[in-house]
Amino acid sequence: MMNNKHPLLLVVSGPSGSGKGSMLGKYLKSAEDTFYSISATTRQMRPGEENGVNYHFVSEEEFKAKIEAEAMLEYARYCDHYYGTPKAPVEENLAAGRDVILELDVAGAMKIQKIRPDAIFIFTLPPSMEVLRRRLIGRNTEAEDVIAKRLAVAVEEIRQAHCYDYVVVNDDLDEAVCEFSCIVAAEKAKMERNQNFINEVFFQ
Amino acid sequence: MMNNKHPLLLVVSGPSGSGKGSMLGKYLKSAEDTFYSISATTRQMRPGEENGVNYHFVSEEEFKAKIEAEAMLEYARYCDHYYGTPKAPVEENLAAGRDVILELDVAGAMKIQKIRPDAIFIFTLPPSMEVLRRRLIGRNTEAEDVIAKRLAVAVEEIRQAHCYDYVVVNDDLDEAVCEFSCIVAAEKAKMERNQNFINEVFFQ
Repeated sequence: MMNNKHPLLLVVSGPSGSGKGSMLGKYLKSAEDTFYSISATTRQMRPGEENGVNYHFVSEEEFKAKIEAEAMLEYARYCDHYYGTPKAPVEENLAAGRDVILELDVAGAMKIQKIRPDAIFIFTLPPSMEVLRRRLIGRNTEAEDVIAKRLAVAVEEIRQAHCYDYVVVNDDLDEAVCEFSCIVAAEKAKMERNQNFINEVFFQ
Repeated sequence: MMNNKHPLLLVVSGPSGSGKGSMLGKYLKSAEDTFYSISATTRQMRPGEENGVNYHFVSEEEFKAKIEAEAMLEYARYCDHYYGTPKAPVEENLAAGRDVILELDVAGAMKIQKIRPDAIFIFTLPPSMEVLRRRLIGRNTEAEDVIAKRLAVAVEEIRQAHCYDYVVVNDDLDEAVCEFSCIVAAEKAKMERNQNFINEVFFQ
């Protein structure tokens, strides 16, 4: 059971302010053999960003060639730039027995759900509207109407949470990481992922 | 999420030698607000047993009256005695927000699956045939053919594991308890058990 014959494809979404990033960051430190997928994009690298860390920064020609070659698991175009998930690293890591995490917006996650229904879909949430508001304000000192707009966007995303398998409320970071780890462990304990093990050990 | 608005009905089975008893014993020490269902039986109390601890020891008339009154969640007759799960404590504890554990043989578990498809079914396994054999021998010093018979019974039970939702391999006790706890936590994180929370917090 402890060997990873059935690596998981984990798709994680959640609005800005849900604490998704800090949860995944902390989880990945403890789950060394998990592969976190880096998206590709055609937008310009910003100061402080690093190629292959924040994104794989590629040219529009390269991105289009990858789409043509069906080398993207999913992709979308926002504000005149492409963003997407390169297929090869995901498949190679799964084949090597590593769990793979895709951090995607709801639209991207829903595309994965169509082509990989075996993936596990996890939605992160703030514990309340008040905490969500405070986290969105906390990031900078913008006007009230900007905050209100961000809050509305977040709530629109939460409206689609029902399409996911699990929900993790990130109130306390350690608890959220623990809950995420439990979802991974429980999915690996599911009967359908252990039937081969049972057959090999007891019926051969 | 941390309040238990959606208590779970957990049904646990596993052959003798699977380490089910020690796993549940240790789990229950950490999960204080979980109710472990005590079966009722019409068989004689044995030396060292205690009424209400090992079983609720009742007369045949009492048991039959409970069957008649539909006060048993499931029951069976083995070797001229009745064994069964009293319904009231299970329902009362679930209603009070407590998780409930039923430790049942496969036949009993399958009866619960028919009437309570929302229950979570967990099967405990030894890590190998060799460990299973050693655990069955370990209990006393019986003849080889008695051991062989017990092993055959255990394997017959394992053949039905596929009807369960999860499998916990009890190799290391702490790991098994941890895995069991994770299954409970993950089930509570399932979207269908959190839709009301999401609606209350974000859409009212």
